[in-house]
Amino acid sequence: MKPLWSVTEETFNPVRLHHNETVFTQGNGFFCTRGALEEFYPGEQRTTFVHGVFDDAPIVFTELANFPDWLEMEIVLDGEPFDLSRGQILDFNRSLNLRNGLLSRRVQWQSPQGRITQLEFARFISLANEHIACLQVVITPENYSGEIKIRSGLNGCADNLQYKHWSWLGQGASSNQCWLHLVTSATQIEMGMAARMRLSAAGHIDREAWNVHGHPTLAYSVQCLAGEPIHIEKVISLFTQREVSQPTEAAQEELSRLPAECFAWGQLWSEHEARWEEEWQRCDVIIEGDDEAQLALRFSIYHLLIAAPRHDEHVNIGAKTLSGFGYRGHVFWDTEIFMLPFFTFTRPEIARNLLSYRFHNLPGAREKAAENGFRGAQYPWESAGDGHEVTPTWIPDPKDRKAIIRIWTGDIEIHISSDIAYAVWQYWVASKERGFLVQRGAEMILDTARFWASRLEWNEQKHQFELTDVIGPDEYHEHVDNNAYTNYLVRWHLETAVRLGRWLKQEEFAVAEELFAKLNISETTFTQWEGMANSIYCPKEEATGLIEQFDGYFRRQDIDLASLEPRSVSVQKLFGIEGTNETQVIKQPDVLMLLYMLADQFDERTAAANYDYYTPRTDLTYGSSLGPSIQAIMAARLGRQEEAYKNFMRAAQADLEDVRGNAADGIHGASAGGLWQAVVFGFAGLRVRSDGWNLEPALPAHWKRLAFKFMWHGQEVSVDLKGKEAEVKDD
Amino acid sequence: MKPLWSVTEETFNPVRLHHNETVFTQGNGFFCTRGALEEFYPGEQRTTFVHGVFDDAPIVFTELANFPDWLEMEIVLDGEPFDLSRGQILDFNRSLNLRNGLLSRRVQWQSPQGRITQLEFARFISLANEHIACLQVVITPENYSGEIKIRSGLNGCADNLQYKHWSWLGQGASSNQCWLHLVTSATQIEMGMAARMRLSAAGHIDREAWNVHGHPTLAYSVQCLAGEPIHIEKVISLFTQREVSQPTEAAQEELSRLPAECFAWGQLWSEHEARWEEEWQRCDVIIEGDDEAQLALRFSIYHLLIAAPRHDEHVNIGAKTLSGFGYRGHVFWDTEIFMLPFFTFTRPEIARNLLSYRFHNLPGAREKAAENGFRGAQYPWESAGDGHEVTPTWIPDPKDRKAIIRIWTGDIEIHISSDIAYAVWQYWVASKERGFLVQRGAEMILDTARFWASRLEWNEQKHQFELTDVIGPDEYHEHVDNNAYTNYLVRWHLETAVRLGRWLKQEEFAVAEELFAKLNISETTFTQWEGMANSIYCPKEEATGLIEQFDGYFRRQDIDLASLEPRSVSVQKLFGIEGTNETQVIKQPDVLMLLYMLADQFDERTAAANYDYYTPRTDLTYGSSLGPSIQAIMAARLGRQEEAYKNFMRAAQADLEDVRGNAADGIHGASAGGLWQAVVFGFAGLRVRSDGWNLEPALPAHWKRLAFKFMWHGQEVSVDLKGKEAEVKDD
Repeated sequence: MKPLWSVTEETFNPVRLHHNETVFTQGNGFFCTRGALEEFYPGEQRTTFVHGVFDDAPIVFTELANFPDWLEMEIVLDGEPFDLSRGQILDFNRSLNLRNGLLSRRVQWQSPQGRITQLEFARFISLANEHIACLQVVITPENYSGEIKIRSGLNGCADNLQYKHWSWLGQGASSNQCWLHLVTSATQIEMGMAARMRLSAAGHIDREAWNVHGHPTLAYSVQCLAGEPIHIEKVISLFTQREVSQPTEAAQEELSRLPAECFAWGQLWSEHEARWEEEWQRCDVIIEGDDEAQLALRFSIYHLLIAAPRHDEHVNIGAKTLSGFGYRGHVFWDTEIFMLPFFTFTRPEIARNLLSYRFHNLPGAREKAAENGFRGAQYPWESAGDGHEVTPTWIPDPKDRKAIIRIWTGDIEIHISSDIAYAVWQYWVASKERGFLVQRGAEMILDTARFWASRLEWNEQKHQFELTDVIGPDEYHEHVDNNAYTNYLVRWHLETAVRLGRWLKQEEFAVAEELFAKLNISETTFTQWEGMANSIYCPKEEATGLIEQFDGYFRRQDIDLASLEPRSVSVQKLFGIEGTNETQVIKQPDVLMLLYMLADQFDERTAAANYDYYTPRTDLTYGSSLGPSIQAIMAARLGRQEEAYKNFMRAAQADLEDVRGNAADGIHGASAGGLWQAVVFGFAGLRVRSDGWNLEPALPAHWKRLAFKFMWHGQEVSVDLKGKEAEVKDD
Repeated sequence: MKPLWSVTEETFNPVRLHHNETVFTQGNGFFCTRGALEEFYPGEQRTTFVHGVFDDAPIVFTELANFPDWLEMEIVLDGEPFDLSRGQILDFNRSLNLRNGLLSRRVQWQSPQGRITQLEFARFISLANEHIACLQVVITPENYSGEIKIRSGLNGCADNLQYKHWSWLGQGASSNQCWLHLVTSATQIEMGMAARMRLSAAGHIDREAWNVHGHPTLAYSVQCLAGEPIHIEKVISLFTQREVSQPTEAAQEELSRLPAECFAWGQLWSEHEARWEEEWQRCDVIIEGDDEAQLALRFSIYHLLIAAPRHDEHVNIGAKTLSGFGYRGHVFWDTEIFMLPFFTFTRPEIARNLLSYRFHNLPGAREKAAENGFRGAQYPWESAGDGHEVTPTWIPDPKDRKAIIRIWTGDIEIHISSDIAYAVWQYWVASKERGFLVQRGAEMILDTARFWASRLEWNEQKHQFELTDVIGPDEYHEHVDNNAYTNYLVRWHLETAVRLGRWLKQEEFAVAEELFAKLNISETTFTQWEGMANSIYCPKEEATGLIEQFDGYFRRQDIDLASLEPRSVSVQKLFGIEGTNETQVIKQPDVLMLLYMLADQFDERTAAANYDYYTPRTDLTYGSSLGPSIQAIMAARLGRQEEAYKNFMRAAQADLEDVRGNAADGIHGASAGGLWQAVVFGFAGLRVRSDGWNLEPALPAHWKRLAFKFMWHGQEVSVDLKGKEAEVKDD
C-alpha cells in the first residue's frame, strides 16, 4: 500500500480524538460510522448515521438519528479491561486505506498491572452490500496466560449529543447472534440490526448470550496461553423501514446468507474491494510531484464517495456528509454547487440520485413558496427528510441567558433555488441525458423560475427589477439589497428557463403540454420572463469592471485584514455579527463565485479587477470553508499560481489538518468537492459549454503530472497533463 | 388496612399509565421513584429523582437528572416475556398504602400461549435509611411447569424526555450483586448505585452476572413446577457526591451491612414502618363523615412527606415534588406559601431545612438583584441547585416554526421575595425558634427588604411609591402596574423588617451589629423604610371596600365565565395569552390571596366584597392549581359552606382524579399543601397571630369529626372538632 493511499495516525493522541473520529469515518453511501475505537474511550462520539433516517429534535427541528453502536467491543485481559486511557501504549498505528476503505489499528498495550497484549483491529463497511459491515480483531497475550473476556453486541442506548431518538421494539440473543429492533420517536422509522460473531482460539471458549434490555450482547471467555492469538469476527447487517417493511427480519436473513460456520471476511472483503477498485478507476485523480496534494485530494474523493447514495434518490448529502453532528445532517447548496460537479463529471448515476432528491421534494419547495406568498417552488435553505425548510429560526445565545439569536438564512438566503437550477443545467450539459431533463429537470427549472417571477420586485424610479432583503453566499452581510451573485444568477435562471421551455415544446410536445398545464405557464409566460430577465438589475461599473457585491457595499467600512493577523477565529467572532455586517470583510468569495459560475458572461479584465478588489477583503482562513477552493480556481484562471496553490492547500487541509479547528463536527463536504473542482476546473482549466469543452491548464509549478477522467455525454474522457504538454484520450 | 389509608387501582388502565405513575410515586425525602411497573411497558415514564442533583438542559437551563432505573425486572415465563401489553390480565390489583408507603401489586396473567401465572410485587423506599429501597416479587406458575427467567439490574440508559444526563464512570456485576457509577454531564455530580438480589425456589437456580456496558444485570434461570412459587428480593442502595465523596463505595458498603445470606426485607421493613408511624402520629388529620376527603387529604400529606428533605438544608421541594418531569424540579413560591405551612405547623424541623435552602442561596438572590441594578437580595422566580434564576426565558411556539414565546415570570413576577420573607416570619411566629430567626431569618428578611427599597418607584404626581411592570399571582395578566397583592405584601415586608431590625438590635446586639454592617443598614435605613412603607400605594375603594387587582383592572373586559361552560381547557387556551390579558378573567385568586395572608389588615366586609367580586371572574377549574384551596379557605371564613367545600374538593381531586388532566407531569405540590391549609386554616378556622392562636371552626355540614395536631412554640397542640364542640389538648 503506497503512502499516497493511506491516512495514518502514528501515535494515539486523545486531544485529536474527535477530529480523528471524523477523519477515519467509513461508509458505503447507505450508512457511515465514525472512526471511534472499538473499546470505549471517555468523551468519545460514536456515531452511525443512515441516509434519510431523520427524527424531530429541539431547536434544529430535525436531525439524523444516531444509530445503535455496532462497533462496541469490550475486552477484559486476565481481569483488566483494555482501555487506552489507562495503562501504557507501547506501540500504536491506525491507518485508513483510501483505496479500499479498510480501517486497521495495531496496538501493543501494557495494562496497569503489567500485562502486555498485542491487539489488531480491522473493519470495513461493505461497498458491495450496503447492509453489511465487518469487523475483526486478533488478540495475543504476550507476557501472560489467563482468561480473556470479549463482550460485543448492539448498544441501543445511542444519542445525538445527549438527545435520544430511539424507542425499543424488540431484541434477541443466542450464542453467536443477536438482534435489535428500534423505532425513531417522532418520525416512527423502524430500524433493524443483527450481529453475528465467530471466535477461534487454541483454548476453551465459553459462550453466553446476554439479552439485556436495549443492549443485547454476546459474551465470550477464552483461556489463553501467552503467544496464542484469539481471532474474533463480527459481521453486522442493518436495514431500515425506508428499504423494507420488516427491517429486523431483513437484517437476520442477510446474515443467514453468510457461510455458516467459518469466518465470512474473505468473501465479503473481495466483493467489497472489487467495488472500490471500480470507483477509483473512474474517480481517481493522479497528482505527481506533490504528495500532500495527492493524498488530500484522494482523501476528499474518498469522503465524497462514502457519503454518496447509490441506490436511493430520496436522500442527499449533508454539509458534513454522514460523518458528524455538524448541521445535523441538513442539506445546503453545498451539494449542488460544491459537491455535485465531482459526481456529475465522474459518477453521473450518483449526481442523478442527488438531483432527483430535489425533484421529489418539489412539494416542500412549493409549500415554502406559498407560505411566503409566492408562486412556484422555493427550495429550503436547509433541507432534510422531506424537503421542508428546517433551518433553525432561533438559537439560544450562549453568552446571555435572556438573549436568543435569530437565524435569517432560512428566510432570505434565497439563491439556493437558482443554485439547484444551475446544477440541473450543468448535469444536462455534461450528460446530455435527455430523459432526466425532460422528466424531472425541466419541472425543477421551470417551477423555480415561476418563484422568481413572483419574487422579483419592480423599482418604478429605476425601472428595474430588484431583490431586496436577501443574504448572498457571503453570510457576513445579512438583509442586503441586490446581491450581485443572486441577481445575475436569477437572470441566467429565467433566460435558461425560457430557452428550456421553448426547446421542450418543440422537442417533447406532449410532455411540454402536460407540464405547462400543471405549472400554468405558456409562451406568454416566457415572453414575460424574458422581459423580467432583461430588466433585472445586475450591477457592474463600466469603467472599472467592478461588481458591487450588494447595494452600498463599497460604502461599508474597509478593514485591513492583514492587520488582524495572527488570529485563530473568524472575523465575525472578532467583531460580532452586527460589527462585521458594517465592514467590507466577507466570509467567502461572493462576486468571485459568480464570475466562476457564469464565466462566459465576463471578460478576463472584469475577473481580474474583482479578484484584486475582493481577495484582500475575504476571510479565507476562518471564514467559510467554501471559500478557499473557489478562490483557488479564480486565481488559477487568472494565472496567480501562488495564490491559487495557497488557497488550494487551505481547502486541502480543512479536515486532514483541521486548520479551522472544527473537523470534529464532521467532514467539510463542500470543501472536499471544491478541492476536486480546484484541480479539474482550476489547475487543469477544464471549461465546459453547451457546445463542448476545452482545457486551459495552469498547473502549480512543482506538479509534474496531473491525470484524471471525466464523463462527457456518456463517454469517458481521460486527461493526462505533464508539465506543458497535455494528452487527452476520448474513448 | 382500612380503605381510608390506601389508594387502589382495581383494573389496569393503560390510558392512565402516566397518571398512575405519578399517583403511586414512593420516596423518603432523599429520592423518589414514580409508580412504574417493574417489567417494561410501552411509553412508560420511569423516573427516579434525587434532591439537588440537577444538570444543564436546553431551554429550561437545568433540570433534575433522571437516575438509572433500579426497578427494572424482566420476567420470562417458560419462553414468554411477562408483558401487560400482551396476553390477558385475569386479575389485577395495585395498591399504595399511605400509612407505610408500601406499593403492592397482584397480577394473574395469562400469556398469549395460555400460560397462567400469579405475580405479586411489593416495594418500598426506606424512610428509616434514606439510601435504601427494597423490592420483592413472588412468581407462581399456575397451569404449567418450565423455566422462569428473571433479569434485573441497574439501567444507566435513563433520560429526561429523551435527554440524557449521565456519563459512564464504572460498573461491576457478580452473581448476586451489581453496581453502577455515573456522573452528570455538565454539573459533574457523581452517583453510585448498588443492587443485591436474593432468590429462593424449590427448583434449581442458575445465576449469571451480565456485566453489559452501562447496564449491569443479574440473570437467573429457575426450573419451576406448577404451583411452586419463586421468591425474589432486590435491595438497592443509592448515594451521590452531594453526601459522600465516593458514592459507589458507599452504596456497596451500605448493602454489605445487610444480613448476608437471607432476605433483608423483614428487618428493613420494620425500621421503615416505625418511622412512618411516627410521621403520622404528628401529621395525620382525621376527617369523619367524608371518606373521599379523608383519603384525599392523607394522599396529599403522604406526597408532601415523601418529598420533604429531612437531612439536607440545601435542597427544596419543586412545584411537582420529585414525582414527574413537570417544571423540571424547579422551585417556586409554591413551597413557601402553599406547602411550607403544613411543615411549619407539623414538622418544623423540615420547614427549617426548606427555609435554610433559601438562606444558603442568598448569594444567587443578591446576584439577581445586582444584575437588575438593585441592592440587596432578589429571589429567583424559579430556583434549582444553586439559587440562580432558572426560569426559561424563551420557549419554541409549538404552532409556528418561526415564532417563540417569551416567558416573563423570571423577569417581573417579583412578589416571591416577600413570599419568602412572609414564610420566615410565619415560621418564627409558630415556632419562636430564636436561633433560626437571629442566625438566618433576619438576614433573609432584611436583605430582601433592601431589594424592595431600591426597587420601589416614586411617583411624583401622586406622591406615592409604586411597582410598575410586574406579574402578580394571577399570571393571566402580565406587565401590570401596582398589583395589589405585591404592593400590600411589600408594605408588610418593610414594616416587618423594621420591627425585626430594631428588635434584633435590642435583643442580639452583637449579631445585629455584624449583620447591619454586612448589609450596610442602620437606624437611618429603618426610618427610610418606614417612610416608604407609609407611602406605598395600596389600592382600596373606601366606599365598596373593593381592591383593584392592578391599575386599570376594573376597566378590562368582563367575561361571563359561566357562559363558557362546559369547557375542558383553561381560559388562556380559549382566548390566547394576549386575549386573556385583555379580560378580567384571572388564573387564580390574587386579591383573595392577599386577604388570606394579611387577614388582620382587612375587615369581614372588605373580604366579602372582594370575594363576591373576584370569585365569578376566577378560572378555578382549569386556571392555576393553586387557586381552589385558597378559594376554599376564604369561602369557609366567610361562611360560604358549599363553595368552600366545592373548591376544597377541586383541590382534593387535582391528582387523585386528575381533574386538570396534567397529573401525569407530577404531583401538584402546592395543591397538596393548600388542601391541608383549607382544612386547618379554613374549616377548622385556625388563626395565628404573634400573640397567640384561636379557632373559628366552620366544618362542612356532613363532617362528623375533624381532628389534627399542630406545633405551637415547640409544643404539640391537639385539636378535635366534633360538630359544634371543639376539644383542644395543649400538651
